[in-house]
Amino acid sequence: MRAEVISIGTELLLGQIVDTNAAYISRRLAEIGVDVFHRATVGDNLERVAAVIADALARADIVITTGGLGPTEDDPTREAVAEALGLPLVVCEEARRRAESLLARAGHEAAGESALRQARIPRGATVIDNDRGTACGFIAGKDGKAVISMPGVPGEMRGMMETTVLPYLRSRAGNAGNVIRWKVLKICGPGESSVEETVRDLLHDRANPTVAPLVSLGEVMLRITAKAASPGEADALVAPVEAEIRRRLGADVYGQDDDEIQDAVVRLLSEKGLTCAVAESVTGGLIAHKLTQVPGCSAVLGLAVTSYSNEAKRDMLGVPEGALERCGAVSREVAIAMARGALERGRADIAVSTTGVAGPTGGSPGKPVGLVFSGLAWRGGVACARLGLFGTRSEIKERAARRALDLLRRHVLRLW
Amino acid sequence: MRAEVISIGTELLLGQIVDTNAAYISRRLAEIGVDVFHRATVGDNLERVAAVIADALARADIVITTGGLGPTEDDPTREAVAEALGLPLVVCEEARRRAESLLARAGHEAAGESALRQARIPRGATVIDNDRGTACGFIAGKDGKAVISMPGVPGEMRGMMETTVLPYLRSRAGNAGNVIRWKVLKICGPGESSVEETVRDLLHDRANPTVAPLVSLGEVMLRITAKAASPGEADALVAPVEAEIRRRLGADVYGQDDDEIQDAVVRLLSEKGLTCAVAESVTGGLIAHKLTQVPGCSAVLGLAVTSYSNEAKRDMLGVPEGALERCGAVSREVAIAMARGALERGRADIAVSTTGVAGPTGGSPGKPVGLVFSGLAWRGGVACARLGLFGTRSEIKERAARRALDLLRRHVLRLW
Repeated sequence: MRAEVISIGTELLLGQIVDTNAAYISRRLAEIGVDVFHRATVGDNLERVAAVIADALARADIVITTGGLGPTEDDPTREAVAEALGLPLVVCEEARRRAESLLARAGHEAAGESALRQARIPRGATVIDNDRGTACGFIAGKDGKAVISMPGVPGEMRGMMETTVLPYLRSRAGNAGNVIRWKVLKICGPGESSVEETVRDLLHDRANPTVAPLVSLGEVMLRITAKAASPGEADALVAPVEAEIRRRLGADVYGQDDDEIQDAVVRLLSEKGLTCAVAESVTGGLIAHKLTQVPGCSAVLGLAVTSYSNEAKRDMLGVPEGALERCGAVSREVAIAMARGALERGRADIAVSTTGVAGPTGGSPGKPVGLVFSGLAWRGGVACARLGLFGTRSEIKERAARRALDLLRRHVLRLW
Repeated sequence: MRAEVISIGTELLLGQIVDTNAAYISRRLAEIGVDVFHRATVGDNLERVAAVIADALARADIVITTGGLGPTEDDPTREAVAEALGLPLVVCEEARRRAESLLARAGHEAAGESALRQARIPRGATVIDNDRGTACGFIAGKDGKAVISMPGVPGEMRGMMETTVLPYLRSRAGNAGNVIRWKVLKICGPGESSVEETVRDLLHDRANPTVAPLVSLGEVMLRITAKAASPGEADALVAPVEAEIRRRLGADVYGQDDDEIQDAVVRLLSEKGLTCAVAESVTGGLIAHKLTQVPGCSAVLGLAVTSYSNEAKRDMLGVPEGALERCGAVSREVAIAMARGALERGRADIAVSTTGVAGPTGGSPGKPVGLVFSGLAWRGGVACARLGLFGTRSEIKERAARRALDLLRRHVLRLW
């Protein structure tokens, strides 16, 4: 079964917003084996929207639109679908009542008129209820083809996809096309070329599954994508390649799919019943922010200090005045002293620190922008890594935070 | 002048990546008065790419493609453009030598062959140099129309847009279409309905400029969009509406366009020669991270403490054991004590704190998920706001951090 996705909205064509809906819909369709060969974006113009829908209907079995279902005259999708299908619009009374009561409760002027506009659907179409807003969606069919229209608000669209559209497509698709499934293995630390060298033979000359490297701020991801008649068969193609990559890369792989390095760290510390503390200079709170994004992190993180000034390093972390004077704040000595201070004051099992130059100014020949020391301290030892990072201020912070968390992870794996 | 934008790549159609290139290109075109009425996305399939380019050429003067210029057989854009224009591909010797030397330096196998593939352009086309990669872009013309092809790597594409494509389009467009320019005013604190009430008459029945409200995690943005024959005329349409909104909303407007609340805070503190300190519980480092994203923040921020545990609140910030026991960590008393502790220990002029329940677990009937206290302390006073926030864990952190920074900003405006 073949589908096309059409995103409707002048804001999209002006570049005022990035279209995340199209990617989301595409991914969900790929997962259930519906092919998408074309996507289109068009503004709030009735004639153009109707023409794009008609073009798509000529090529595909299913056309999915998002956006343009609002209550104003400018919202063209209902009229455009009706025109493309040659069907009149009728009012769905239930959707109208629901929208009117929602709008009236919110104190909307002209609730009745707005509700009426948003409750119109092509004759014979099935309404898709909107759990989170006033615009109903619909599935309209003709000659064995269907147009599915959903709002552009991401939460409303996703709700409709999950509750109604995907079940409808699954039941319609039967055992049609091939399912596409993928898994992403995530690696922090080794550079792209080093990872590629290790798995080079798996990257090339593979048709199914394919393995593709992706790079993002201090991390390398390997995406294994398989195509098969069923999800189970696709997963069975992915599994041996995944196992082989994990065998070769070992502890370099910290997680998969939506995992981020902080998820791996919190999971590992929780499993081992350990706590950590954080002392940040160059990363400025980002390591703490990442860790506290993970639900349950309060069991593993008690204290984090962002000590930007030398006074804060001295007073809050006990970094010796002598080390700051002799070596400067950006040094191995200070990184280790910061980690030691956080370990003691946070009564933690292991502590990680960062100090460096995030830029854009503040670099010097000996200590250029991007130079970062990440220190570790635990009962019985210390360690420090010297990193040469590049990018903007915010990229350097991001790379440094990821690398520091990965260092912590690797030491916990080794020590406990 | 009318352009269409085509994004090429199977990864896009599978939803493996979100297409930020199309939004970026669209915005830059809108700013120089080039109309975009259609955008398309198509996979790495020669026949389909060629057909989509031909369709676009039938409607528009300029077709801009991004993606599909890599060195493999799967990268179809060069062949597809040549086919759509009916032109043969020729090798640009200079681009080939440049790519080969880059690839050889990176230790690439088959550097010669890859370089050769990436240096092919339609006969008569102008090469667009790639500052950051091996794939050259090109501008190919026929019958007064042009196809402009750039790589899909965002940094490479943006480099080509700025150095070559925008100057080319500007010189070609002359005084053609209307320029679209906009300004976004940013507001933190008051909800959408309160802002809308204040400016309701400006939101409706306006054709040029239009005013549209946008909402994002604790903030409201008002976008004023104007269309005119020149940038100067468009800006002159925006200016009086901007002035009127600023007059009505006063200090509620913290910034414009790419400003974020932390930019406003660092700017304000710098101007007044003040320093701040931060004590975070529920926001877990996010306030410090936001402040340290701003270049030059080291002059205004010395110390930030993320005190997740009660011990850290007591030991690092001097929060009285009694307050923690009597009122609990999520309380007005503890929020204020945290701010006081940060003020003293950070030797700052003003300090801000947060304590609350980020969820997803940990809520109770008296202290539900989303309850946040944000404390302030300065020499001579304290204050505290009680916030009822909603959303996921990460949304609650984001809302709380923004609101806390806005509280700080409002107090600095009032007190100094």
